[in-house]
Formats: sequence, structure tokens, C-alpha cells
Amino acid sequence: MKKIMNSPDTLVAEAVEGLVISFPQYLKQVPGTHVLTRVHSKPAGRVGIVSGGGSGHEPAHAGYVGYGMLDAAVAGEVFTSPTPDQILEGIKAANHGAGVLMVVKNYTGDVMNFDIARELAEAQGIHTATVVVNDDVAVENSSFTTGRRGIAGTIFVHKIAGALAEQGASLAEVEAAANNVIAHVRSMGLALEPCTVPEAGAPTFTLADDEIEMGVGIHGEPGIERQKIRPAHELAAALLEKISGDLPLKSGDHLACIVNGLGATPLLELAGLAREVSLWTQNHGMTLDIVWTGEFMTSLEMAGASLTLLPLDESLTGLLQAPCDTPALRQGVAHD
Amino acid sequence: MKKIMNSPDTLVAEAVEGLVISFPQYLKQVPGTHVLTRVHSKPAGRVGIVSGGGSGHEPAHAGYVGYGMLDAAVAGEVFTSPTPDQILEGIKAANHGAGVLMVVKNYTGDVMNFDIARELAEAQGIHTATVVVNDDVAVENSSFTTGRRGIAGTIFVHKIAGALAEQGASLAEVEAAANNVIAHVRSMGLALEPCTVPEAGAPTFTLADDEIEMGVGIHGEPGIERQKIRPAHELAAALLEKISGDLPLKSGDHLACIVNGLGATPLLELAGLAREVSLWTQNHGMTLDIVWTGEFMTSLEMAGASLTLLPLDESLTGLLQAPCDTPALRQGVAHD
Repeated sequence: MKKIMNSPDTLVAEAVEGLVISFPQYLKQVPGTHVLTRVHSKPAGRVGIVSGGGSGHEPAHAGYVGYGMLDAAVAGEVFTSPTPDQILEGIKAANHGAGVLMVVKNYTGDVMNFDIARELAEAQGIHTATVVVNDDVAVENSSFTTGRRGIAGTIFVHKIAGALAEQGASLAEVEAAANNVIAHVRSMGLALEPCTVPEAGAPTFTLADDEIEMGVGIHGEPGIERQKIRPAHELAAALLEKISGDLPLKSGDHLACIVNGLGATPLLELAGLAREVSLWTQNHGMTLDIVWTGEFMTSLEMAGASLTLLPLDESLTGLLQAPCDTPALRQGVAHD
Repeated sequence: MKKIMNSPDTLVAEAVEGLVISFPQYLKQVPGTHVLTRVHSKPAGRVGIVSGGGSGHEPAHAGYVGYGMLDAAVAGEVFTSPTPDQILEGIKAANHGAGVLMVVKNYTGDVMNFDIARELAEAQGIHTATVVVNDDVAVENSSFTTGRRGIAGTIFVHKIAGALAEQGASLAEVEAAANNVIAHVRSMGLALEPCTVPEAGAPTFTLADDEIEMGVGIHGEPGIERQKIRPAHELAAALLEKISGDLPLKSGDHLACIVNGLGATPLLELAGLAREVSLWTQNHGMTLDIVWTGEFMTSLEMAGASLTLLPLDESLTGLLQAPCDTPALRQGVAHD
């Protein structure tokens, strides 16, 4: 195993400091924790939003801390849930007196630890609500979850809940909007190469020179089927057919998509994949109104990509396009 | 070789289309070319800026087309200079009547083809100037260059020249500012794993499980020395000592840095590396005022990173911090 790090034991702690050094206009660290919160806090009386989970998915979640998205992100060790006391610190940092929404990816450890933290926060008088993202259509249950896994669709939940919270919506309204996104967002990924968890030191699986793994999650776990590598248009169609098979899509629908790199796949290839998604939706009589192409929810240095689809209405489109200003996603830039 | 693509022959053409699909608010394609230009053109009477080169370095250069940076980017095939006729189309797209600056990375093919294009443009009455970036301190000459190579420091040249051009500076002023950056910006990189050029189909070199290659460029070429992998703080020091040995740095200096991922190295590791740069500069009595951490100038899916240093004065700091709005770099976001 080769990584640019001092040791697996200090990797996350040092990266948390490094994120503050890299994005000081956005991020500050809650002292003594792996919680990153906004430099410029939301005004009092607005709903706060916290997310987090294991590290190794960067820019998720610290990269989404800032105006229009999250108030705080809690980083566990690599692919390991943060502890309840760390999550509690995140909730406290995100609390501006109107309650805090926790956006949790569906993994057993995260769901459990965020739930304990929620109880601790309630005991301190902080109103909280939890939404659990389960957008991965690849598997119904996995080695890490009961039910579907939460993957890149989580970023649409951050964006839409974050925009509403910024507008002054109540905790119940923000929670309902997040659950509405979760009810309609679907994703699936494929890997060309595995990743190596620093503590383990060896790749989580191996693939032959012409093999891909369909339906991978974001924790290095294998997917649902090993297949031969195929042209990009066939890979895109395979993912999109599985995703759309789980949604009531029809000709005329408007869609948002995340073309998400899992770590090692270059933007050159992701851009080509975005083109395939666009062609596929056109061929199905649908319109791709919003495409986010890049690395949004990674799995260390895994090579591969996931696709996420969200059917749009006017309200969702507006919230996805609303201004935001975070290390990883910025929209609505002032010129002069 | 496994890549998400339809074929090596169509990869770049399809990626150019995919970039427009992914960033339609920024980029439009000059029909029939691999030239991407701004959707919202600069006002007449401002200097235009063009860059480009071989593909495989994304987000360079199309990712920097937009307000405050480039007016057009010209994409060659992977690691191959664009042809003079394509570059000429870029110059024409960037021309708003006040002349066009071409920012060229020092590689023999690019320098030659941009020079031919410049002559063609001048023959059509477009005033042009060329600056050649040569920030890589690793080697004095290489398989692809006479003199030093141009790598990630190019992005500081884009940013500073772009900010000045937006303010209405003349072509001579923008050219002089770009050359001032080039005179002071220095970079060096290291690889943990090589990359595979799609047309070639095999990695450009091989490294053992405990080996790194110091001083790599961005075209898959080997570097200057094969070494054992070491802790991040030693890797950072090795790069920074070589870089700073080529600059007249002293205690009290203010610096800007690019912590650049070469493709497969996760943000988790790049953030840790940013922390090492910060500690190193502190230990040398210097102040790191600006740190850009992420993927700015890649080498396909190469694992590794480069560091870039630029000593700052008040003027350079202001230009680096000026608003910009491009797919890959956005600063100065409006909040409501």
C-alpha cells in the first residue's frame, strides 16, 4: 500500500486540519473534535443541518459545509462511523435555535450512532430530526446495511434541504423536503479498480484486467456482479436501466443527474459518461436539466463512477439551482 | 487497460461534448472544433486569454474558461498538442478587439503549434502575445521539452492574467504580469502509480509496491529518481526543498501554494499534504496566505501530487483572490 500520509492512525485527524488550512474562508474545526463547521454561521432562528459518516468519501461531507448546504460535518475514521459524542458536537455547532436536521447515509453504524447522538441532543434541549438516505438500487441489503445503502444521492439531499433551511423553512418543512428527495432519488455505481483502506493495507477486492464490478457501494465492498468491461454507452445504459427501473419515469420528465467519480476516474472519462447520460435521456424522451459532473462522493482511490437520477419539478429545480458557497460546490457567483 | 470510454479514438471529442453538457452555464463549443469558449463573452475592448494543450489534464484547461480566467481552451488528443488550426479557432473565439494572450505550457509540440497559430492570427489582424510556463524544477530538459516543463503553476498564470484582463489591462500589461508570475512560480511532483495513455493501453512506467517516482511531469513520463515511499512530512519536505532551492525565499515571505492531485490521489491525502506544507512554511518563518488544494492539473489517473509555490506581494494576492467563475474555480459568491 502506498498513500501520501504519515500513518493510518493520524490520517483523518491531519486531513481535518488540512481541510481547514485549505478552505479557511469556509471551515473551522470544533476544538478537540473531527467536526468542521461554518466560519460564517447561519443567522439565529434558522434550521441547522448536520451530516457526516466515515472518512474516505471526500469531498463528502466537509466539502459541503457552507452557505446553502450544511452547517457542520462530522468525520469518523476511514469507512467508520463517527462516535455519538462527536456527532453531538456537530449537532451543537449546527444549532441556531430552530432545530437541527441530521442527514445520514443508510449504514448500520451511522444510523445507530446518529440515533444515540440525537437522544443526547434532545436531552440537552436541542430539537432534532433525522433523515436516512438509501438511494443505491444495487442491493436491498448489504454487508453494512439493512435496506439500501446511501451513496451519492445524499448530495442532492444536502443541497435541497440546505437551500430550504437558508430560506427560513421550519425543521418539519426541511425534514419533509429531504424525505421527498429521498423518496425519489436513485443511484448505482460500478468499479474498474478497488480501493485500499489504510488500516487494512490491501485492496478490498481484486479485478482482472478486463473486469468491472457492477453495483459497488462506497466502502470498498464488492458489488452484485462481475462483468467484462464494455463501451461507455453500454455501461451508462446498464446503470440507467437499473436506476430507472426503480422509478416511475416517463417520456417528458425532467431530470437532475450526478455523474460521480469514485476517486481515480479522470474528469475526461466522467465528461464522456455525462454525454452518454444525456443521449440516453434524450432517447427516452426525457430532458436532463441539471448535470453535476465530478467527484462528489468518493470511495478513496477506487476507479469507477456512479450515476444518480432525481426527477424534477419546479420546486426541486429551484432549490438545486439556488446559490450555495461551499468548498466543493459553489453556485451564484458575483461578477465584480 | 480499463477506462470508461467508447474508444480511444472518440474519447476526447466525446469528453468535449460532455463538458458542455456538464457545464452549460459556462462552456460552449466552437462548432466543428475541440475549442471551448465562454457562454457569456467578455465585453469588447478587453484582452482575451487562450490556453490549451493535450487532453488528460482535466480540469485543465476547459475547467478554467469563464469570468476572471480564460476566454477559450483548446483541447488536443490525450497528451498531444492541438493543431494550429484548432488553436487559431481558440484565438478567434477569445478575440474581443484588444488582443489575445496565449498561455502555453513549455512542451515542444505546444510551443511550436501555438507559434504557428499566432502567425496565422496575426495574418488575420489579431494582435497576440505568448507566454510560456516552465515551473517544474525537477528537470532542466526532458523527453518532451527544451528547458523546464510547464505544469500546475500554469493555473496561477491563468488566474492572475485573467483577473487583470477582466479589469481592462492592455495586452502588454497582461503579458508582463503573466511573465512576472512565470519568473517566480515553481512546482514539483511525485507519483505513487503511473497512468495509462488510452491509445497506448499500458502504463507508462511501473513502480514496486513500496516505490515512488520523484519529479514526474504530467505526461506519464518518468521522473528523476525512484525512491522508497516515506511519510507525508518527508515527501512534502523533499518537494519543498527542491522548489525553494530555486527561489530566493526568506523568513517573513508570504506564499501561495497549489496542492495538486495528479488524478487518483484522494482529497483525504491532499488535505494531509496541505497541512505538511503549512507546517513546513511556518517552520521556515514564512506565511501561507493562499492554499488551493484539489485537482487542478492532472495526468489522467496517475496517483501522486505536485506542489507549487508562488511568493506573494500585495498585487499578486489581490489578483489571486479576485472573483472568478469557472467550472473548476469559483471565488466571490453572492449570498442572496
